[in-house]
Amino acid sequence: MTPLPASTTKGDSTRIAILDAAVAAASTVGLEGLSIGQLAKETGLSKSGLFAHFDSKENLQLQVLARATERFVETVIAPALKVRRGVPRLRAFFEYWLKWEKDPAMRGCFFLSIATELDDQPGVVRDRFVAYQRDWQSALATAARIAVEEGHFLEDLDVEQFAYDFFGMILAFHHFSRLMHDAGAEVRLRASFERLLADCRRPDWPDPQAKA
Amino acid sequence: MTPLPASTTKGDSTRIAILDAAVAAASTVGLEGLSIGQLAKETGLSKSGLFAHFDSKENLQLQVLARATERFVETVIAPALKVRRGVPRLRAFFEYWLKWEKDPAMRGCFFLSIATELDDQPGVVRDRFVAYQRDWQSALATAARIAVEEGHFLEDLDVEQFAYDFFGMILAFHHFSRLMHDAGAEVRLRASFERLLADCRRPDWPDPQAKA
Repeated sequence: MTPLPASTTKGDSTRIAILDAAVAAASTVGLEGLSIGQLAKETGLSKSGLFAHFDSKENLQLQVLARATERFVETVIAPALKVRRGVPRLRAFFEYWLKWEKDPAMRGCFFLSIATELDDQPGVVRDRFVAYQRDWQSALATAARIAVEEGHFLEDLDVEQFAYDFFGMILAFHHFSRLMHDAGAEVRLRASFERLLADCRRPDWPDPQAKA
Repeated sequence: MTPLPASTTKGDSTRIAILDAAVAAASTVGLEGLSIGQLAKETGLSKSGLFAHFDSKENLQLQVLARATERFVETVIAPALKVRRGVPRLRAFFEYWLKWEKDPAMRGCFFLSIATELDDQPGVVRDRFVAYQRDWQSALATAARIAVEEGHFLEDLDVEQFAYDFFGMILAFHHFSRLMHDAGAEVRLRASFERLLADCRRPDWPDPQAKA
């Protein structure tokens, strides 16, 4: 569980503890597989107590998504935003994202595990999920635009394409490492990322962190 | 259903018809969701008749995997192997694979739909699935090696990395187009593929099919 701010009330901290248990469970059983009965068992709370926090299964699912996103922001986005603008920050996004993806507590990335589940289930939960994914893709495009401004990336770079390729290679890594148990997947992923950075780099900006 | 060879016996063609129905069903409900009862309903055959073809659920799942692979070979691999060696053949793999991926009858790629399902389910079905995926990845690496031999690709190209990147971008496309309903995903995918080919190309081989 992530540390709670000092001002958090008891009700809040209970809610967060429940949601963290639910995020972990959903990584395995999916959002549809979440049950208030099962969560009651895992958290030691009564079913009626849980219903006080989440008045419907859909509401529970939405709050689980929001909580997972909050943790993604804390683990990946916030620390990367402290890193110097431009390519160094993009490298930080990459490293923190990979750390998140490899976190055994999440059993692989929570978001990717439930992506296929929601594939064929239109509705408010799916819409929310897609909105979060789009936000993250936009954040990557913005970070690439900053790298253009900093003179690290080519002036005419298609930053949306950059974000697509960046996001895409993490999705692929998830598949290769998790499903195919490909022990070399991380080395491959890093090579793909270096190729992407090299293709976007201005020739007059020598990336001090570039690998051969 | 794909056309059957003339020598196919009645038993074979019934088996293939059942398996094709099962492949379509598994794309939606997953391999675990397949039931002999449901297949009996869809094919109009008796449960006992179906048991005569598949003596266990695991056997059914393995045969469904084999049938989907057979169709993938017919739709993607066989026609591409008729195309000229080197980059033209790699482009053919790409186009036929994309066609397969976009086939509405498969509701997106059968293999990717069940990938997440098998993620946490060790066993013979998962092992077989991973073996099929590895075979396909090796076929892509071999096709890239041929492109090196033909003088299209750089002599020192890491063809395994090429296969990883090629496969990875199709996985990513599946995610963006299917889950996120990103109408621009195909344009993005094509740009990623052109960038990959451009990065691998020998400077003295001008690819006649290259896009700007």
